[in-house]
Amino acid sequence: MSGLKVSSRARISPFFVMEMMRAAAGREATGGEVVHMEVGQPSTPAPVGARAAAKAAIDHDVLGYTSAVGIEPLRGRLAQHYADWYGHHVESANIVVTQGASGGFTLAFLACFDAGDRVAVTAPGYPCYRNTLEALDVEVTEISVTADTGYRLTAEMLAAAGELDGLVVASPANPTGTMLRPQQLSDIAQWCHSASVRLISDEIYHGISYGTPAATAAASSPSAVVVNSFSKYFSMTGWRLGWLLLPPELVAPVERLAQNATIAPATVSQHAALGAFDSLDELDANVARYVENRRILLKGLAAAGIDRFAPPDGAFYIYANVDHLTDDSAELAAAWLADLGIATTPGIDFDPTDGHRYIRFSFAGSNDDMERTVERLTAWQHRRQA
Amino acid sequence: MSGLKVSSRARISPFFVMEMMRAAAGREATGGEVVHMEVGQPSTPAPVGARAAAKAAIDHDVLGYTSAVGIEPLRGRLAQHYADWYGHHVESANIVVTQGASGGFTLAFLACFDAGDRVAVTAPGYPCYRNTLEALDVEVTEISVTADTGYRLTAEMLAAAGELDGLVVASPANPTGTMLRPQQLSDIAQWCHSASVRLISDEIYHGISYGTPAATAAASSPSAVVVNSFSKYFSMTGWRLGWLLLPPELVAPVERLAQNATIAPATVSQHAALGAFDSLDELDANVARYVENRRILLKGLAAAGIDRFAPPDGAFYIYANVDHLTDDSAELAAAWLADLGIATTPGIDFDPTDGHRYIRFSFAGSNDDMERTVERLTAWQHRRQA
Repeated sequence: MSGLKVSSRARISPFFVMEMMRAAAGREATGGEVVHMEVGQPSTPAPVGARAAAKAAIDHDVLGYTSAVGIEPLRGRLAQHYADWYGHHVESANIVVTQGASGGFTLAFLACFDAGDRVAVTAPGYPCYRNTLEALDVEVTEISVTADTGYRLTAEMLAAAGELDGLVVASPANPTGTMLRPQQLSDIAQWCHSASVRLISDEIYHGISYGTPAATAAASSPSAVVVNSFSKYFSMTGWRLGWLLLPPELVAPVERLAQNATIAPATVSQHAALGAFDSLDELDANVARYVENRRILLKGLAAAGIDRFAPPDGAFYIYANVDHLTDDSAELAAAWLADLGIATTPGIDFDPTDGHRYIRFSFAGSNDDMERTVERLTAWQHRRQA
Repeated sequence: MSGLKVSSRARISPFFVMEMMRAAAGREATGGEVVHMEVGQPSTPAPVGARAAAKAAIDHDVLGYTSAVGIEPLRGRLAQHYADWYGHHVESANIVVTQGASGGFTLAFLACFDAGDRVAVTAPGYPCYRNTLEALDVEVTEISVTADTGYRLTAEMLAAAGELDGLVVASPANPTGTMLRPQQLSDIAQWCHSASVRLISDEIYHGISYGTPAATAAASSPSAVVVNSFSKYFSMTGWRLGWLLLPPELVAPVERLAQNATIAPATVSQHAALGAFDSLDELDANVARYVENRRILLKGLAAAGIDRFAPPDGAFYIYANVDHLTDDSAELAAAWLADLGIATTPGIDFDPTDGHRYIRFSFAGSNDDMERTVERLTAWQHRRQA
């Protein structure tokens, strides 16, 4: 240790799921077998169109820096995507390609909020919103949402949250898989706009839903910032590519921040992402697999005595209350990994207060992974009750 | 415009060279020809070993998230790199793979400095240090360095800069190509350590030098943060991959910040970078090309009446005083692009005060690009004097 200071703002929490991934990898390294129900990423690679486009770019392109906001063909294709999926017209000039949704959040937070501003997130919720905002000296306030309302935020809860500069909302949400109905999202977006609260809408699970497709906040508010990604529906986590759909006043600020803090997103990933649009059938087949995974778990987890959760509307998560099984879900997750070879994520990542009573199951793996999970948990439950 | 506020901290400067790239691309889009002397990137693609490794990874790997700090084989290979190049032993545990040097700077700045801390940079210098620090609410103080001292910073200048929390120094430097001699770097590093000033040493141009090879600050100080990249010597700008070599007390804070703000660097780029180490001969041949480019420009620019610069010790830049030709180097750069098809970078990017008297030439292109630049500038000079 050199004795020099470490910043106060680096005292944020880790993203615990990555610790769980490490524990699971440790078990695999010593010959153990692991069913990966912990990490929120598809078990499939990028679709064939993406891989072909990446290899062609590697063969034929120098792959130097692109514009900080991304290559024009990809920005244009993303604009088209809003017409195709949402029937919503957007200008490609308002789209900025980013280093994953994570890079998009950092740029959006910097462009929208100053140190000391107050931004609301939900609990449970994706922990990196809170942690990244705190690293940028933004004050975070948590609004508790509970299973009885399907973990849905309402404009009433917002109005009760005190003076706000911003709100981060996700639909479908991580870790609960809950979706706001289009009207609910629209109500929240309009409430935020009227109250001069900058809405950051995390739409990274769009395309993975089990009922009504998700609506985009951009259709309901001229001031909302939309964050999206090629990681989930497009099955490209490790390519680290996402995008922002921005209100006009934020385009130049985000571009300046991106030029200085990132230079540009990875060029090979941008070419791959453009190619992914040639493989929508393959991606829809992934979603069909999630539908079947969800069916297996809804039935099988209940049979294993894990039945206290809201059935997910989208994404690939089940967030189950396990306080009839443990008073420390991190301990339970560790035991399941050690005894059953099943990796899951304890709720503490998503909710510092109540998370110790919850476990998140990610069902982005194979049907077979789901069957094995259900079998082993059912057998564990029988042993436990014997 | 939605009427909602944009943050104050987004009011940083753009990275102007990217505007110049855009102007040059605009000329090319309308059929014009451009000699690219503006952008600081090799005209060569990633070396063959990198491209082969990337394609193999695309074919055989799911390419999901990696650990936030990067894959172990790459961290290990980078540790070996310090033994090979500098004869300096480092632990792979102290290496964090990042999204380019840019991503490394952001993580290092967040881990080392709080809002209101005071950090020194040199002027002229790489503008993104200043702009990114300002976006993170860090106070930036500029220390002027001039051609008479070869644009070199000294411990005396530092002592005169007032109370500091940090210092960013680059050797070789952008835009001047100046290098600190090993003893000078060591003096600065030791001065910083004794004064509890966190030294951030930008070593991204290491491997590209025209005399004594560069020393690493890590060898002279237990508290220095080293930032490096696969963009320059390794010729992989668009792959957006870099690394940090950290003092032990910063490893966990940087890992937490990376987990939350980036998740992980691009997986395909990490595999490519590992493969790049199989192609060091190809990379050394690129450096031999820069040696010849430098020779052509040193001789040819002088013949064209552009002779007021310190010959670069490293990197691929010449930072020339052109105030005998213009009182606005941005105007001159625009004229050269329009009239000669030569894109350069006006000094305003690197020095807000004095930059209007300077032009940066980047000589990372082909020998032929250099010959064309010299020919056209010589002819322009003759016409001007006629």
